[in-house]
This record gives sequence, C-alpha cells and structure tokens, in this order.
Amino acid sequence: MALIVQKYGGTSVANLERIANVAKKVIRTKEAGNKVVVVLSAMSGETDRLIKLARQAAPEPNLREYDSLISTGEQTTITLLAIMLNGMGHKAKSFLGFQVPVITDQAFSKARILRVQKEAVLKELAEGTIVVVAGFQGRDGENNITTLGRGGSDTSAVALAAALDADVCDIYTDVDGVYTTDPNICSKARRLSQITYDEMLEMARAGAKVLQPRSVELAKKYNVPVYVKSSFSDEGGTLVTKEAKNMEKEIVSGVTYDRDQAKITVIHVPDRPGIAVAIFAPLAEHNIMVDMIIQNASIAGYTDMTFTVSRKEVLEAKRIIGEAVQGIGADKLEVDENVAKVSVIGSGMISHAGVAAKIFQTLANERINILMISTSEIKVSCVVEAKYTELAVTALHDAFELEKER
Amino acid sequence: MALIVQKYGGTSVANLERIANVAKKVIRTKEAGNKVVVVLSAMSGETDRLIKLARQAAPEPNLREYDSLISTGEQTTITLLAIMLNGMGHKAKSFLGFQVPVITDQAFSKARILRVQKEAVLKELAEGTIVVVAGFQGRDGENNITTLGRGGSDTSAVALAAALDADVCDIYTDVDGVYTTDPNICSKARRLSQITYDEMLEMARAGAKVLQPRSVELAKKYNVPVYVKSSFSDEGGTLVTKEAKNMEKEIVSGVTYDRDQAKITVIHVPDRPGIAVAIFAPLAEHNIMVDMIIQNASIAGYTDMTFTVSRKEVLEAKRIIGEAVQGIGADKLEVDENVAKVSVIGSGMISHAGVAAKIFQTLANERINILMISTSEIKVSCVVEAKYTELAVTALHDAFELEKER
Repeated sequence: MALIVQKYGGTSVANLERIANVAKKVIRTKEAGNKVVVVLSAMSGETDRLIKLARQAAPEPNLREYDSLISTGEQTTITLLAIMLNGMGHKAKSFLGFQVPVITDQAFSKARILRVQKEAVLKELAEGTIVVVAGFQGRDGENNITTLGRGGSDTSAVALAAALDADVCDIYTDVDGVYTTDPNICSKARRLSQITYDEMLEMARAGAKVLQPRSVELAKKYNVPVYVKSSFSDEGGTLVTKEAKNMEKEIVSGVTYDRDQAKITVIHVPDRPGIAVAIFAPLAEHNIMVDMIIQNASIAGYTDMTFTVSRKEVLEAKRIIGEAVQGIGADKLEVDENVAKVSVIGSGMISHAGVAAKIFQTLANERINILMISTSEIKVSCVVEAKYTELAVTALHDAFELEKER
Repeated sequence: MALIVQKYGGTSVANLERIANVAKKVIRTKEAGNKVVVVLSAMSGETDRLIKLARQAAPEPNLREYDSLISTGEQTTITLLAIMLNGMGHKAKSFLGFQVPVITDQAFSKARILRVQKEAVLKELAEGTIVVVAGFQGRDGENNITTLGRGGSDTSAVALAAALDADVCDIYTDVDGVYTTDPNICSKARRLSQITYDEMLEMARAGAKVLQPRSVELAKKYNVPVYVKSSFSDEGGTLVTKEAKNMEKEIVSGVTYDRDQAKITVIHVPDRPGIAVAIFAPLAEHNIMVDMIIQNASIAGYTDMTFTVSRKEVLEAKRIIGEAVQGIGADKLEVDENVAKVSVIGSGMISHAGVAAKIFQTLANERINILMISTSEIKVSCVVEAKYTELAVTALHDAFELEKER
C-alpha cells in the first residue's frame, strides 16, 4: 500500500465541477489501494481577489491580518472537496494549516515551514480517511495564521510528503509536465520525461513557473520523488528525481526566462571588507530576495555592485539601499526595470566545457547585448534587455537542439 | 476606563465602505478612553452563499467540513476591519474562534460555547490594541472549527462580554432597537427604551429577530447589560437589562410572531409514564428544537400529543417520530405547516390577572381560531393559522395600547 500526496493547483479547483473532477481522481487513487493525502490551492483568481480586497482596505495591509484573510481561499476548496468526498461515500477530513499543524516562522506573507507534525494526519490515514490539507498556509508558534508566499501550495505538498515519508508527490497543474522551454514563446519546446532536482531547481529559480523553487529544494533535501502531471489528462508528466537514468548524454535540458527582474547598481562603492554585508543585510532583514549579484573588479579602491530583485520589490529595495548608500560612501544608485533573465540549464554542463561560450556566441549572433552574467555548476544566466527575451530563448533552444528527443 | 464589546451584524459589514464606517465608530469609542472588543458577523449574504456552495457539493454536507467552510465569512470581515484599523494608525488584531479560543461542544453547525479563554484578549487590550473577534465560531476540544448556528454572533459577543467582565455589550444592527412589535406589519409599533432580560428572552424565543435567544440567556446569566443600537444612526437604542426601572406599570411590552412553525400531532398515544421521553428524546438526540408541547387530557388511557418545530426541520422530525410512533403504539402522525405563533409578552403579567383572557377575547373578536396555547409567567403564545398572523398581531397591539408611551 503506497502513500501518495496529490497537489492540485488553482485551475484544477476553479469551480465545483472541477473539484468534482479532482474528487474522482482522488477516489480512483484510493481505490487502487493507496493512502491519499490531497493538498489544494485556492480557486484560481480567489487569492488575487482577496489580495485586492486587502489593498483596498489599506494600501499596505498589516501582514498578520493579510495572511489570515488570504488563507480563506484554501479553506474553501479543501472543505468543499471533503464535503464532496464524504457525499460520495468516502471518508474524508480537511486539515487547515493550524490543524495539521504546519509550523512556520513568523515571516507573514512569505513564511517558511519549520516542521510538519504528522501524527494527526497519520492517524486519519490509518483509519482509511482521505486527508485533504490546505496548501499555502501554516501557523507560527503563537497560533497566528501564516502563508508561504506565491506557489506555496507546492511547498506544502512536498513538506507533507517528506514528513509522512510518502512514496510520491504528484503535482497536478494545468500543463502536462516540464518543458525544455516555455511552449508559449517557442513552438519547438519539448516535454521532458525526467529531470533532476538540481536542474528543476535551477529552472524554477530561473523563471520556469511549473514548480515553486522552495518545493524543489525541499524535495531534493528529503529525496521526495515529484511527478508533475496535468489535471485534465492522464497523458504525459515529468518525474523530478535524484538521478535521471537516461540523461547522461544530455548537456542542456532547458532554457528558461524570467521577466520579473529589475537591476539595481550601486555605483562607486569603497571596496573594503563588509561592504556587501552593509548592502545586502538590510535587504534580507526586509525579506527582499536578491537574485544575481555581480561585483566588478576593483579600480583604485572602488567598485560597482549590481544585483537583481523582483520587479515588485524594486521600490522598497531602492528605498532600503538608498539609506545604506549614504552610510557606506557610495556615489549613487541606478535602477533598470526593463531587463529579463534568460538561463540555460543542464546537469551535463559539469563535465562539458564550452556551453557558456556557445551561449554567448548565440546571443552575439542575434546582436543581443549581455548586461549581467552569472553561472552555477549547471546553469548559465544572462540578463538582457527585456525586449530580447523571446528572441534569446528561441535562439538558445535552437542552438542546443532541445527539440530533439535524446 | 470602560471595557466595551461592540457587535456588528452582516448588513453593517456588507462591503468595504460599511466596514470603514464600523472602523470609524470603533475608533470613536476607543478615543473616548475605552478598551474595545469588536465582534463581527460575515458580510450579509455571504453565509448563505457558502451554505449554498456546501449543498451543491453534497445534498447533506458533512457538518464538520460545513462549519469550517462557512466560518470563512467572519474570517474575511474581521481581517478586513483589522487591516483598516491598522491602516488608520490604530493597533488592532483579529482573533478567530480557535485563536481566542472560544471553546465549544462538538455539535457542528449548532455548537454551544463551553468557555471563553480570556487571557490572550486581555493581554492585547492591556497593550491598547483593539481586539476584533470573529463571531459565530469557536473550536471544540479537538481543534475542529465549530459554528454556533444562526445569529451566533450575538452569542459570541455576549459570551466575550461576560468572560471579560465588560461594562456593556453593544449590539449594532439594522434596526434602532427593540419594538413593541414588528414595524413591518404594524405601523403603530413603538421602540422600547428598556426591556428586561426575561421579556427580551421571551420575545426572541417567540420570533422577534433582533437578538438571538441564546445571547439573551447568556446576558441574563452573567448580568451583561446589552444595548441594541442602529449601525447607521446614533439615535434610539434599547437597553436590555436586569430590571427596567420605569417598567413597573407596564403589563405588556410587546407582541411577536413566528412564521417558522410547523405543528405535529401524535394521535392516540397510550397514556403511560415515559411516553413523552419516547417521543422527545429521539428529537433531542438529533438536535431538533421542540418549541411548544401540548398534551391533551387523557381519555380512556389514550391522549394526543401536539408540538411545534421549525418548519425547516419538520421533515426530519416527522421521520424520527414516525419510527418512535410504532414503538409506543400510537395511531398516526399529523403535520400542519400552515401555522404561525403569535405571542404577547410582559413582565407585568406576573401580577396582573386577565391578560390571557383579554388575548383570547381579542382573537375571538377577529374570528381567529386558536390551535394551541402555551403560557409562561410573562408570556402567552397562541398558534393560529398562518394567514391570520398579521391580523392577530395588529389586533393584540391595539388591544394592549402598545403604541402609547408609558
């Protein structure tokens, strides 16, 4: 008897008809002899509606209250599914974040899971109950409701799968798997049957929206096999796992892009120890995620420090860094919001030289200027002007012949 | 410094504009030097919308899940008010039922409050925080969300006022007080400035919808002064209290009616000890409230037992009693749904004879047949054909000259 965690996203529970469809899938899994834990998002559009309400109530809503408000979206879907399942004769019980409980830190609106207490869920599973858990939410040590930030339901599902030692975590979404790139901007995009955690992590971080990066980190850490599938079809799917057997010869597995980028440059920074801390610690304190960081070579004791943040947080970042700039004696700040990040990802890069060179050559052939470069063992990211995003992605997909099955 | 509990009903928080209006009233109370606890209902119509969703998901929704679903209505309003108050510069914190916590029994959808733990709320009040509590909800001993049934927010407010030893519990609603009868069907209805708990209790039980009976019971038990006021005007109001000083000479204070009545008669019941238990215990087990009970004088060892239940529960009651009837050897059941209850209430009845006689005479003059009669120390209720409701109320209001200020 396997223990399966299934997560369904917002489009899969958008209305009662679709929730009924989820109920059928869940029952099929249960009747195949499995224990089932279902994790749901809010109906698509609902979280945005609640966020809008909160912002109408106050331009900068108190975040504790904001979290309690927007967590109602998942409360609605899990109780409706549990009502349906019970109505169809299958014992089911919903669990809110505080009922599991999923314990998080107190970073309201982007809380991190500290631990999942599994006893109550295991008890229900042992009794044959289908357990339906609210994604996206938890509680802190003081019984306040917290939410995990955008896409947090994926993280909830993987965290539950890890805590319960589930056999697999199925992520049902509106696409049927992970593609070599976004099919919306590149018609040659091909679905991958398998991908490693590290590649998926880099793809998610680099802008592929199919899984939230934190959920992939967590899956990797606890070695949870994650299967990305379509809610609307039984075909396809991509398995995200430790080691993809048939992938030895793949140098590059995907090209991603992220338009939610803004570039900030701190100009003429005195180059002495502790400068990076002075700039980035205040951002971390305000929970602003910094993506790429580039420090130029020092000239005459001064350097320029460039980094990227989410476009949504650029104003706050600018304000925070603006204060820090005075303290450290830098000249000024420059902000560019018209940028995008294009990334090439592949675990084969580790043992293959020349991937970066080929990327730069490909972009140069298209006369695309590279504004920032950052590399990891299995990824090369380039920040380019936003208007070149589609061109860069298509050219790189072609250059590495990703349309071909290996 | 007084501690004031303010409860606002669904029409008072129907949209953001009205919630802003509530915020202003709350701030005014706070700035007058009071500690304030606010209890809110869901936006008007929201609970009905959620109930409809639940019934679409399954004709007889699992009640644990149902409670968790419909409790989201209050979660929305309290967090929005707390966001607004914080946005206006006033520290405010929302409390869900499980966060207070308000501990209830496990009778999902009509739970009763067992106790209110006051420590967390008192701590916030001591720090000058405005506390905003979700009405209508609590949690049971196993951390399941429970709801208190229709109008439960009044009960929440009074229970909080009692636990916190508040100076007053203001109930803001869409009418400006308690009237001698329903102004919608009797134009001569007059607002009462004061009324006793017992009278209010009888009026609420007899169908006046301004306060939920359980909230009045609770107010009486803990001697909480309750002030019924309009959300939309600072005029008027009715104080519900232990003893209304100027009320000595009032024999009758109000006439109420309740159309949500159905009459069930168990015919030819063997008249032996334990028969009433055999009929009514099964109803109690199914949480069906029985209102009036009449047992005819026994003839030749047999009697008829007539009682009224809510029209919504008549089918279930019929089914339950139908089973009991066979066991006790009664002949059959008769059900009449076209009835209404008209009641005359007044604490002065205790010391004045002739009130009942005057009621019967008044109805007889209008040629209204009385189907059932039940009396308490301060109330006389008559069940009549539903079509005579308005006529009976108006005639009784006139007969006792309730339009005249005393």
